Amino acid sequence: MSLYVMKFGGSSVGDTERMKRVAKRIVEKQDEGHQCVVVVSAMGDTTDDLIDQAKLLNDEPPAREMDMLMTTGEQISIAMLSMAIHQLGRSAVSFTGWQAGFLTEAEHGKARIIDIRPDRVLKALEEQKIVIVAGFQGISEDGEITTLGRGGSDTTAVALAAAIKADACEIYTDVDGVYSTDPRIVKCARKLKEISYDEMLELANLGAAVLHPRAVEYAKHNNVRLIVRSSFNHNEGTLVKEEAVMEQGVVVSGIAYDKNVARISILGVEDVPGVLATVFGALAEAKIDVDIIVQSGVLDGKADFSFTVALSDQQRALSVLEGIRKVIPYREVNTEDGLVKVSIVGAGMVSHPGVAAQMFGALSKLGVSIKMVSTSEIKVSCVIEAGKLQEVVKALHTAYNLDTEEQVFVGGPQDRR
Amino acid sequence: MSLYVMKFGGSSVGDTERMKRVAKRIVEKQDEGHQCVVVVSAMGDTTDDLIDQAKLLNDEPPAREMDMLMTTGEQISIAMLSMAIHQLGRSAVSFTGWQAGFLTEAEHGKARIIDIRPDRVLKALEEQKIVIVAGFQGISEDGEITTLGRGGSDTTAVALAAAIKADACEIYTDVDGVYSTDPRIVKCARKLKEISYDEMLELANLGAAVLHPRAVEYAKHNNVRLIVRSSFNHNEGTLVKEEAVMEQGVVVSGIAYDKNVARISILGVEDVPGVLATVFGALAEAKIDVDIIVQSGVLDGKADFSFTVALSDQQRALSVLEGIRKVIPYREVNTEDGLVKVSIVGAGMVSHPGVAAQMFGALSKLGVSIKMVSTSEIKVSCVIEAGKLQEVVKALHTAYNLDTEEQVFVGGPQDRR
Repeated sequence: MSLYVMKFGGSSVGDTERMKRVAKRIVEKQDEGHQCVVVVSAMGDTTDDLIDQAKLLNDEPPAREMDMLMTTGEQISIAMLSMAIHQLGRSAVSFTGWQAGFLTEAEHGKARIIDIRPDRVLKALEEQKIVIVAGFQGISEDGEITTLGRGGSDTTAVALAAAIKADACEIYTDVDGVYSTDPRIVKCARKLKEISYDEMLELANLGAAVLHPRAVEYAKHNNVRLIVRSSFNHNEGTLVKEEAVMEQGVVVSGIAYDKNVARISILGVEDVPGVLATVFGALAEAKIDVDIIVQSGVLDGKADFSFTVALSDQQRALSVLEGIRKVIPYREVNTEDGLVKVSIVGAGMVSHPGVAAQMFGALSKLGVSIKMVSTSEIKVSCVIEAGKLQEVVKALHTAYNLDTEEQVFVGGPQDRR
Repeated sequence: MSLYVMKFGGSSVGDTERMKRVAKRIVEKQDEGHQCVVVVSAMGDTTDDLIDQAKLLNDEPPAREMDMLMTTGEQISIAMLSMAIHQLGRSAVSFTGWQAGFLTEAEHGKARIIDIRPDRVLKALEEQKIVIVAGFQGISEDGEITTLGRGGSDTTAVALAAAIKADACEIYTDVDGVYSTDPRIVKCARKLKEISYDEMLELANLGAAVLHPRAVEYAKHNNVRLIVRSSFNHNEGTLVKEEAVMEQGVVVSGIAYDKNVARISILGVEDVPGVLATVFGALAEAKIDVDIIVQSGVLDGKADFSFTVALSDQQRALSVLEGIRKVIPYREVNTEDGLVKVSIVGAGMVSHPGVAAQMFGALSKLGVSIKMVSTSEIKVSCVIEAGKLQEVVKALHTAYNLDTEEQVFVGGPQDRR
């Protein structure tokens, strides 16, 4: 008998029919002799509908009241899923975030988990019940209802799995597992049997929307075995763990891309100590995430440097730079969008020199010029023009021996709360 | 400066436009220099929609999970109302039942309030905030989310008013106040300026659906000044309190009716001690409420008696009687529906003999035969055939000098949760 945390996203419980299917799935798991704790998101569009309603009442609804409102979405889900399980003749009990013991910071809308006190969850398990927990929510020390920041229900599931020492945390999605790349672009993408936390983190951060990075970090930190699998079939899924077994001859595990990229360059900056600290300090203060940073050589005591930000932050970032012009004089700022970041990820890279060169070669063969490069031990990212994205991803997928014969079914976009 | 509890039902906050209107109303109250605690029900049809969804998942949804589900309705309302008030530039804070300190029994779906610990409400008032509390809900000692039984949000408002020692509890409805009778039947019904708790209790119990009897009982017990008034205009409303001032020459305050009546008669019962106790004990055990009980004389050691039950309990009551036939032998049982109970209510009756006779006379003049009679110090009820209900109510209204010149506006049915 193993103890599983099973997480179902909003699209998996999008309507009552799907809810029933999920209930059946959980009961099957119990029939296999396992204990089940289920984490569930708000049904389908519930969250968006609530946001729309709120906007009708207030241009900028207070974060505390938004949390009060949004958490009803998951509360509806847990109650309904519990009812559906009862209908199948099993005993189940639903818990809100606060009932399940999720103690968080008081930061409304983006609270971090401080502690989990899962007494009621454990007691219900002892009573042979299927336990259903509302994702994405918790309670502050002052008794305020909070929602977790990005990563929501995935993080709830992983954190709960760690707290109750579950044998594994299964994330049910609308795809079969983690793929070597986006199957919407490369039909012969390969489903990965295993992948390491670090690789998954890179893939997650790079826009492979199966698992939220924060949940992966949490899993890595607490060594929670993560399984990503489909809620529509019984295929095996992808196991995410510390040391993944690499397939023979495969150095790169996956190819990711991110369309949400804008480049900003600052030209002719006085090259004195503290310049970068001032620039990126100001951006950080404005809560703008900077991704790749490249500084080219210094000429005549003046330096040029470039960085990328999310497309949605582009204009704000330019304002910030305008604002610090008096402190950090520069010749000019220019910016560019219509870009994309393509990355190869693989734990095997470290021991295989030439992996990056192979990437540059493939891009060059397609006549694609590389705007920026960034590398880590397990990834190489290139910023290129968006136009040739599909060709590039396909070419890299082939170049790194990732193509398979099978064709992948691709469902709708997965609700990630 | 007074402290008001203001309660708005589901139809008053049926959509975002109405929600905004309620917010404005509350802000006006604050502008008059008062402190406001607002109790609010679920928006319009939310509750029914949730029940419909639940039924799709489970024929008999477990009561605990129904409470988990239903309480989201009020939670949505409080968050939205708070947002609407913030939009008007005021500080407001919403509390769920458990946050507001409503400790209840663990009886899901019909919990009674055990205690109220309104620390957070009082603290928020000190901070000059408008406090918004979810009606109809609480928490058990085990931390389970509960809903109050019938009377729901009215009871929440009155109980909270008692707990925080509010100066008054205003119940906002879709009518101007408590009327001398149903304005849908008698256009010239009279709005009562004042009415005593006891009279209101009789009227509420008799089907005048403005206030739930349990809320009135609670108000009487804790001496909470209740004001019933319209959420659509600023008319004065009706004050419910211990000793109401009677208008000159008005002995009867109101005329109520109840269509939900079935008569059951047991004929030829052995007249030995304990018969009634056995019969009505068995009915009570089956949770069947018995209203009027009439025993006629004893003939040859056999007695006949009749009683009324709610129409929806009629068949179950007959089964119960069938079940006890071996213990309490009787000749036959007969039953009748298509009946209605008409009542005159007035604290002044005690000191005015002949009030009942006047009623019987009025009925007789209309050729209506009286099936059963029941009296208390402040009311006389007659069970009659339903056919002439409208004529009867009109005639009694005139007979007791209740007609006015004004015509009453009648809105839609008020959501009573």
